[in-house]
Amino acid sequence: MSNDPKSTSGIPIKVVYGPEDVARGTAGERPGEYPFTRGIYPTMYRGRLWTFRQYAGYGTAEETNARFRELLRAGQSGLSVAFDLPTQMGYDSDSPMAEGEVGRVGVAIDTVDDLARVFEGIPLDQVSTSMTINATAAILLAMYIVVAEERGIGRNRLRGTVQNDVLKEYIARGTYIFPPEPSLRLVTDVFAFVVREGMPFNPISISGYHMREAGCTAVQEIAFTFANAIEYLDRALAAGIAVDDIAPRISFFFAAHNDLFEEVAKFRAARRLWARIVRERYGGSDASCRLRFHTQTGGSTLTAQQPLNNVVRVAIQGLAAVLGGTQSLHTNAYDEALSLPTAASARLALRTQQILAYESGVANTVDPLAGSYYVEYLTEALERQAEQLLEEVAARGGAARAIEQGVFQEAIGRAAYAYQQAVERGEVVVVGVNRFVEEEQAEVPPGPDYSALAEVQRRRVKEARRRRDRRAWEESLERVRAAARSEGEPLMPAILEAVRARATVGEISDALREVWGTFRASAAAATGSAGSFRA
Amino acid sequence: MSNDPKSTSGIPIKVVYGPEDVARGTAGERPGEYPFTRGIYPTMYRGRLWTFRQYAGYGTAEETNARFRELLRAGQSGLSVAFDLPTQMGYDSDSPMAEGEVGRVGVAIDTVDDLARVFEGIPLDQVSTSMTINATAAILLAMYIVVAEERGIGRNRLRGTVQNDVLKEYIARGTYIFPPEPSLRLVTDVFAFVVREGMPFNPISISGYHMREAGCTAVQEIAFTFANAIEYLDRALAAGIAVDDIAPRISFFFAAHNDLFEEVAKFRAARRLWARIVRERYGGSDASCRLRFHTQTGGSTLTAQQPLNNVVRVAIQGLAAVLGGTQSLHTNAYDEALSLPTAASARLALRTQQILAYESGVANTVDPLAGSYYVEYLTEALERQAEQLLEEVAARGGAARAIEQGVFQEAIGRAAYAYQQAVERGEVVVVGVNRFVEEEQAEVPPGPDYSALAEVQRRRVKEARRRRDRRAWEESLERVRAAARSEGEPLMPAILEAVRARATVGEISDALREVWGTFRASAAAATGSAGSFRA
Repeated sequence: MSNDPKSTSGIPIKVVYGPEDVARGTAGERPGEYPFTRGIYPTMYRGRLWTFRQYAGYGTAEETNARFRELLRAGQSGLSVAFDLPTQMGYDSDSPMAEGEVGRVGVAIDTVDDLARVFEGIPLDQVSTSMTINATAAILLAMYIVVAEERGIGRNRLRGTVQNDVLKEYIARGTYIFPPEPSLRLVTDVFAFVVREGMPFNPISISGYHMREAGCTAVQEIAFTFANAIEYLDRALAAGIAVDDIAPRISFFFAAHNDLFEEVAKFRAARRLWARIVRERYGGSDASCRLRFHTQTGGSTLTAQQPLNNVVRVAIQGLAAVLGGTQSLHTNAYDEALSLPTAASARLALRTQQILAYESGVANTVDPLAGSYYVEYLTEALERQAEQLLEEVAARGGAARAIEQGVFQEAIGRAAYAYQQAVERGEVVVVGVNRFVEEEQAEVPPGPDYSALAEVQRRRVKEARRRRDRRAWEESLERVRAAARSEGEPLMPAILEAVRARATVGEISDALREVWGTFRASAAAATGSAGSFRA
Repeated sequence: MSNDPKSTSGIPIKVVYGPEDVARGTAGERPGEYPFTRGIYPTMYRGRLWTFRQYAGYGTAEETNARFRELLRAGQSGLSVAFDLPTQMGYDSDSPMAEGEVGRVGVAIDTVDDLARVFEGIPLDQVSTSMTINATAAILLAMYIVVAEERGIGRNRLRGTVQNDVLKEYIARGTYIFPPEPSLRLVTDVFAFVVREGMPFNPISISGYHMREAGCTAVQEIAFTFANAIEYLDRALAAGIAVDDIAPRISFFFAAHNDLFEEVAKFRAARRLWARIVRERYGGSDASCRLRFHTQTGGSTLTAQQPLNNVVRVAIQGLAAVLGGTQSLHTNAYDEALSLPTAASARLALRTQQILAYESGVANTVDPLAGSYYVEYLTEALERQAEQLLEEVAARGGAARAIEQGVFQEAIGRAAYAYQQAVERGEVVVVGVNRFVEEEQAEVPPGPDYSALAEVQRRRVKEARRRRDRRAWEESLERVRAAARSEGEPLMPAILEAVRARATVGEISDALREVWGTFRASAAAATGSAGSFRA
């Protein structure tokens, strides 16, 4: 056993690094050129800063609209919508399944009119909007398109992203509805729709974030995310979509944790590895090889103890994302471990990005850590280890198959357990938690009255049901069922029609449930049966 | 004119850096070896972390003692004493010159018994103590020695630093008393004493910090600090002290501002340049060539507006100091622009260091930015420009002469003015000040009742005067005057005797004033008459 400290991915760290530690480096590479280690654009932030994109949403559409306007006024440059669990799981606000969850972790959306209220007074052709939505991504994308078209804005002018990454839901996040195969069909259908319509919209954001939050390492974050990406790309190609039509529209979503240099190296390694995969496996063009990603600072790294310490952590993590060349960034509010962020803590999180952007000087040159012996070493180590893990997934038949076997889930569980043990043994220090502890009484600020918000929303959805054209609504849902039944049939046109007829998220989801059924994680997948799979 | 953004020192920053931008680099260098660019020790923080040294002190000795104990309990690893202005200027608390200033910017010290109370319950042989004191440094060092000796602790077991850098007081800080020549004699006398007694104590901390706070650039910070250092070393050698006795005891004090990579490069450049000066100019040994420095984050960069934004700034600046290889660090409290730090804000500042040390991973390897094309480029540029400035100072006859001519003062004033103009024009963004401004009402927490604290201290010094042995006291002060009159006579033994006789800071200072007179800045020095000296 080495006495060297280890990176969070378990890479032993030497006392000193020098040129002898770097095999290939990036001396001959230019940003904006394959393999893009140094960045996907030639001038990066000198051309345009990353997008300040704070994830927000709670209660009814009005509360969320107010927070969005506040963030835009404070200098945010992109929107990011958080939806409540019922919306994510395809239940209406008045469903018994929604009890106690309406408007809690995000905004409650039932009909398209709710989404219209979220964006009231916000010019949809001038912002880019990210929607954290997966099992019901097709429905919410359809709603966004209908909100715009009812304001006279064509879908070809809508910029943004739907998360739509259902595979990681089976692994780590849990908001799936249907079994994997029809879920993947829905994902691919959204791909095909966006390509066919020529929308400047990312039909997926393939997410390592939630796996990292669940406890995986930086290496696993890269590898499992790309394993899922390969699964999606394989299916898109099987559905007849050309790689150079879909790959440039695929976006990614990573976490930024505390280990500053490993995180920067992770982003650099991910860019190079993805470029190689797209070129070597798919023969994609240079534009297809560009890894575009959003970053969020690591929610799981924040502590309820001494909450202002989190301002420091978020600053370091945000710095990692920027030094790693992220395209957009959410910096967490320091009180997220305690409660819904207040307007003041949400603003401080945004100010953190602005100080990085305008005061720290780190955006003044592209990939400022290039050449650093340590960072280039870590970049190479992470790329190599992630590639090995990818090969192990391939040997198991790819991501969908590995997920069925609980392979990722078990590996993540093992990594999370090892981390917890290290914290308990004090080998990993968490300031304020297992060292430098204070006697304190955390003051949890009173949150919003969710039950009152939920009551408003329940009345609203009942009223919306009364007002709509019943026949058009019934026919549109029947078309959704018919499309779902017929394997080769596109789904998005039927969903769009149902949205226009004021069908709710729950009703459209129910129509699909009737045809596809629902999915429950098996005991095998939940406990993991992956044997020797490497953590 | 280049359209490139510039570092705060005015160095134009290119879009991309590559190996072609680095002339010499540090590929062949090892930390712990001459010229020490990568660090002064072979293992740096892997061997031992930097010292967490928070500057603190206010009111009477009791308040300061309580804050010190709180900081030690919270994990601080070194002490740093702030003294009030009367103590710094050599006036007792009951002097009319002290009116309104007693205990305000630091602790009030009149007799050695006050200093004893500051350190009550703190084992002087187990902590290192830094004292920010200049014109009266010899007196406070004598008091520290007497506090220890009255507890049975020999001076050879006292670790710490007295600032004792009077030259920068004439340039930027203003707490000088005597004219430059006797002031420099006093500085040199402290050097000689510490060397003669074999104390493991730094008899000076040559400070760029206050010049940087006054508005100079990173390049000027290096150059003016080293110009002063050369003046001190020249005088020490002229007084018969061997370079290898004094150089290893000289410590430095720099600022850490927001421009992350320029700041890291500044520390690296400073190490290499100082090593070359000590070897090439003085023939010093490798041990003499090591640049040991304390860093404080930049007080002048903090804003009264949106004060929690300062937590982010301090985190970035603290990171710069650590990546730059500092030996000790003070991280500012976020509310310092508003008021005396509260216990909570002082603790958060310390937590910032602990998160950098234990969570960010940046202390896991030595000089992690070595090899970075950008950082190596900046290191070379800063070293070259600082060296040029040093040559200009040499051409004017050295630091003392240049200060008399107001040369540094004018250059700093010009840089500060240029910066202010850039802020006013919006070319330099200060978040919350000239961009992303909020309507807000800064809540200034009520500070301590200084007038009550001052009253306690005034009573205490009167009482101390009554209790002491009048004859021993009179004789000891006469010996101080006699030593001051006689050019070759050491001063420290007489000052120690006076301290033991309970002479006050004001009385010892007055004894020296009687012989040496006081200094007032001339109009020429104040307005600057430096002509073409480079800003």
